[in-house]
Amino acid sequence: MPEFFNEIPEDLMKLSRGAAVVLPKDFGAVVAYTGIGKDSIVAEAGAGTGFMTVQLARIAKHVYSYENREEHYKVALANVQRLKLENVTLKNEEMSALDQDNLDLIFLDFKGSNLLIPQMHPRIKNGGWLVSYCPNIEQAKEFSLECSKLFRQVFTITSNVTHYTIRDFGCRPDNFGMVHTGYLTFAKK
Amino acid sequence: MPEFFNEIPEDLMKLSRGAAVVLPKDFGAVVAYTGIGKDSIVAEAGAGTGFMTVQLARIAKHVYSYENREEHYKVALANVQRLKLENVTLKNEEMSALDQDNLDLIFLDFKGSNLLIPQMHPRIKNGGWLVSYCPNIEQAKEFSLECSKLFRQVFTITSNVTHYTIRDFGCRPDNFGMVHTGYLTFAKK
Amino acid sequence: MPEFFNEIPEDLMKLSRGAAVVLPKDFGAVVAYTGIGKDSIVAEAGAGTGFMTVQLARIAKHVYSYENREEHYKVALANVQRLKLENVTLKNEEMSALDQDNLDLIFLDFKGSNLLIPQMHPRIKNGGWLVSYCPNIEQAKEFSLECSKLFRQVFTITSNVTHYTIRDFGCRPDNFGMVHTGYLTFAKK
Amino acid sequence: MPEFFNEIPEDLMKLSRGAAVVLPKDFGAVVAYTGIGKDSIVAEAGAGTGFMTVQLARIAKHVYSYENREEHYKVALANVQRLKLENVTLKNEEMSALDQDNLDLIFLDFKGSNLLIPQMHPRIKNGGWLVSYCPNIEQAKEFSLECSKLFRQVFTITSNVTHYTIRDFGCRPDNFGMVHTGYLTFAKK
Repeated sequence: MPEFFNEIPEDLMKLSRGAAVVLPKDFGAVVAYTGIGKDSIVAEAGAGTGFMTVQLARIAKHVYSYENREEHYKVALANVQRLKLENVTLKNEEMSALDQDNLDLIFLDFKGSNLLIPQMHPRIKNGGWLVSYCPNIEQAKEFSLECSKLFRQVFTITSNVTHYTIRDFGCRPDNFGMVHTGYLTFAKK
Repeated sequence: MPEFFNEIPEDLMKLSRGAAVVLPKDFGAVVAYTGIGKDSIVAEAGAGTGFMTVQLARIAKHVYSYENREEHYKVALANVQRLKLENVTLKNEEMSALDQDNLDLIFLDFKGSNLLIPQMHPRIKNGGWLVSYCPNIEQAKEFSLECSKLFRQVFTITSNVTHYTIRDFGCRPDNFGMVHTGYLTFAKK
Repeated sequence: MPEFFNEIPEDLMKLSRGAAVVLPKDFGAVVAYTGIGKDSIVAEAGAGTGFMTVQLARIAKHVYSYENREEHYKVALANVQRLKLENVTLKNEEMSALDQDNLDLIFLDFKGSNLLIPQMHPRIKNGGWLVSYCPNIEQAKEFSLECSKLFRQVFTITSNVTHYTIRDFGCRPDNFGMVHTGYLTFAKK
Repeated sequence: MPEFFNEIPEDLMKLSRGAAVVLPKDFGAVVAYTGIGKDSIVAEAGAGTGFMTVQLARIAKHVYSYENREEHYKVALANVQRLKLENVTLKNEEMSALDQDNLDLIFLDFKGSNLLIPQMHPRIKNGGWLVSYCPNIEQAKEFSLECSKLFRQVFTITSNVTHYTIRDFGCRPDNFGMVHTGYLTFAKK
């Protein structure tokens, strides 16, 4: 297990993993820039094995979570049940089946998420956010440019955490570490 | 107003500022790594003009906030009232007056915070966190080494957000930007 | 004049500037990764106002430099003369006019440089390098993928220098700074 | 052998290594910021196994190199001979034995290098540079503050290279990589 998993909250440590996960550094940026909190209703897809689901459920009033691949859905469901999360609705469906309205945040983490932008836009309340997580810049670009047609503010960032070695005789950044996970594109309605 | 203030949640945009603030990128890292959520009781000092207070109040059940400098306290109080936050207790006192127990998080953002570590430790519940925000590495080092005597896990990070310029004809990181705000040291009880 | 110009060699400080320049951090990466030295024969285009030309001339045996825009060529020529550089041949021509062979390095800094790759390849000696400097990732990608067809090793980097504030009472990275200049793609024959 | 050794000049690939080495990214910054070239006379200590020695010898007219640990000196000597470098004088002595004057650059890479600053200063010509490479910030700070008493310009940087994954279907920074090697402090006489 890579070193960066040593420094994540305990609930996440208990989870089974079987897909790429949204790490705390990226989750933290989503929370901070969208301003979601305990009154927020959020939706996400694809849930993968539920790493982001669990993090969002700590913060939000309710999380609607979609995962169309059955093997990931089953692991995510087991993870949600293990942590006894009562504010998560997990569905083994495509995100296009989303039927909630007035959402504070929709978070999309799957290939081709840009194709759903026009369908997601009306589901979000005014002042709410659509956020995508894309491993490559080409996907972030497509998502960003498409969002610019419908949303009033769009920006793309990467969030990078540097870990430090602290010793009485000397301090420095760690020599090696994670450099990149994904591009986060934020679109505000 | 620096460009990075364009991309922060609307509630923060309404705040009066008169002291250095904890930016969303650093707030996000605190939320993500400590795992605080809507059931969490947290305390912080010094509140400054309430930028971190407001961000924590979105997430936590209750925020106890201390600011001993009266001019900052007054601005923070006005900010908390403007946003009608009902889960914040703001005190114009030294942090040493803290009398809550069983806290999920204590966040310290003032010079000399390392001197309060022994006094803060018993206020935190098992599994809870003490976090400091220090502009210079020397302070982070002092804080980290002192925490290592009492806490079971201690680490120091910086959180860095890179903003991207996305255009149809070409994408790249922004040419100039914020490089450093402060060192975050996390100590888990 | 931006702060980063305070920390460059004196010969560069004397130069007239009128175009985007290749900063020392990027020049340093070119020298370090290509291994050029005092026996090397190098060529470059477009010279702009000669910032990279002057840096290469300090290191290489001879620099053949091309700049097709007359207004930049004139400034570059004046800069080369001011520094009395005797190992620079500066031409107000397109790079396609290059007629030297057995080059240790060809450095390309202009839009559309990828179109010249097949023509540059035979001019480079075995073990020599073709390097491009591209502001956007799309150009670096085109250049890299095209080079992969002809060269035996291709890689793309960015070089980033962090400046530190060092004071007796506290050290940290500078708060603000340059984040991005350009992508450097290296192709080894 | 770590991945970053794949992308260094061929002469370095032939070297025996037995000590921490100054990587090309740091060497490149030294060349770029000091402006050394083919007319420069430089000195360095400790040579280690000669990685920096070989890089400097490609650029400079002559390199005087000191290494007091015999086991490293022997490897460095073998490396210098293998590459048939004729412009390197390698000595198995302390740097305090340095007797050249009018140097363009003195590069120090050993613990306690700050103690030699007063002795190095008169060896450097006006406009020349003293540069140290320190793994920890405390050493860089000591070196920087001491240099500020004698030199007219002092600054500290880190040089960081990000490697990119470039594919037709998507580009991004590499997921993992080197984050930190050392602090470079530059002092100009």
